[in-house]
Amino acid sequence: MELPSKLLENAVNEISQLPGIGKRTALRLALHLLRQPGSQTSMLSQALEKMRNEIQYCNECHNISDAEICKICESPTRDASIICVVEDVRDVMAIEGTGSFKGVYHVLGGKINPIEGIGPSQLNISTLVSKVKERDITEIIFALSSTMEGDTTNFYIYKQLKDYPVLTSTIARGIAIGDELEYADEVTLGRSLMHRIPFEQSIRQV
Amino acid sequence: MELPSKLLENAVNEISQLPGIGKRTALRLALHLLRQPGSQTSMLSQALEKMRNEIQYCNECHNISDAEICKICESPTRDASIICVVEDVRDVMAIEGTGSFKGVYHVLGGKINPIEGIGPSQLNISTLVSKVKERDITEIIFALSSTMEGDTTNFYIYKQLKDYPVLTSTIARGIAIGDELEYADEVTLGRSLMHRIPFEQSIRQV
Ligand SMILES: [Zn+2]
Ligand SMILES: [Zn+2]
Repeated sequence: MELPSKLLENAVNEISQLPGIGKRTALRLALHLLRQPGSQTSMLSQALEKMRNEIQYCNECHNISDAEICKICESPTRDASIICVVEDVRDVMAIEGTGSFKGVYHVLGGKINPIEGIGPSQLNISTLVSKVKERDITEIIFALSSTMEGDTTNFYIYKQLKDYPVLTSTIARGIAIGDELEYADEVTLGRSLMHRIPFEQSIRQV
Repeated sequence: MELPSKLLENAVNEISQLPGIGKRTALRLALHLLRQPGSQTSMLSQALEKMRNEIQYCNECHNISDAEICKICESPTRDASIICVVEDVRDVMAIEGTGSFKGVYHVLGGKINPIEGIGPSQLNISTLVSKVKERDITEIIFALSSTMEGDTTNFYIYKQLKDYPVLTSTIARGIAIGDELEYADEVTLGRSLMHRIPFEQSIRQV
């Protein structure tokens, strides 16, 4: 794709560094910005720079925050002895959306991924272990995605914690409510059968 | 979608102003930038600002260019008496990619679209009419997309030009080479039949 302008080419190259955005989409976005008032481009680029330079992370849970301690960690109504371990802010938002969790979070900032060169030291794992060592933590709930990287990360943390008197659990996997069995993938369906629960308990959950 | 940070929220809002990018994708892109070195964000935002503030358009054909006259208009091997009218730089790139056009271009910068408030005066139409008036132009080829807006724009320009001794043509519409007839839409197939060409001529084109 030979572009008639270096300025346009640079912009297209930078935009297409973003995940899931190819050169063709990047060109479409660049041409859109050229057609809009210049203020749109400067508002976009200023918002990005400001976010990247000034964003803060909660000192407690490492979630993105505008203060040293986030609203969840700060709240007196949350049970700080139950910690839900998640990958990033999107998982916090998803679980908060259910309205059913009253503990606190610990945001790892990723998963162990040797292929991408992400080891335990690049993730917020040591601070989690310290919390378990130093505080009265009753339960750690692993809520990472169930991929090889998620499982590896869960197991790595589990090993670090197993000498401490803390309960570890993972969120249940199974057929989504309302989904037809025939469309479920085999692994999910298999786990769903293996981890079946007493019927009476399922009635209580509804 | 309630985000835990105003800085993140601003960035997500600005990113999701881009066409085809929803809030969810915008959040994914923002979180990606937060995980990458800060240099990636500053290179992106600087490339966007620089493009928006410094981009030039060819004085002749209005295509994006890094000089006052673009390489195509400047080239002595192009036939400046044949002008292909297109919507934007992507169409120029597509036609240049075929290697089969030796005339020059005229980039309108859009199509007439009353619903979006785009009238003839916002497009590069008057400079095209001037060229036909003042120069020795033999043919104007309309190569806009065949939508209602494209047809309206073609016809508007056609009316402006019809008192001058210039040939006007539009690119052929039809079944793409290699495509099965049964999958073609009816309008394309209908036009393809109506504008059938002598068989001998089709042999020459292969
Ligand atoms: Zn927090
Ligand atoms: Zn030009």
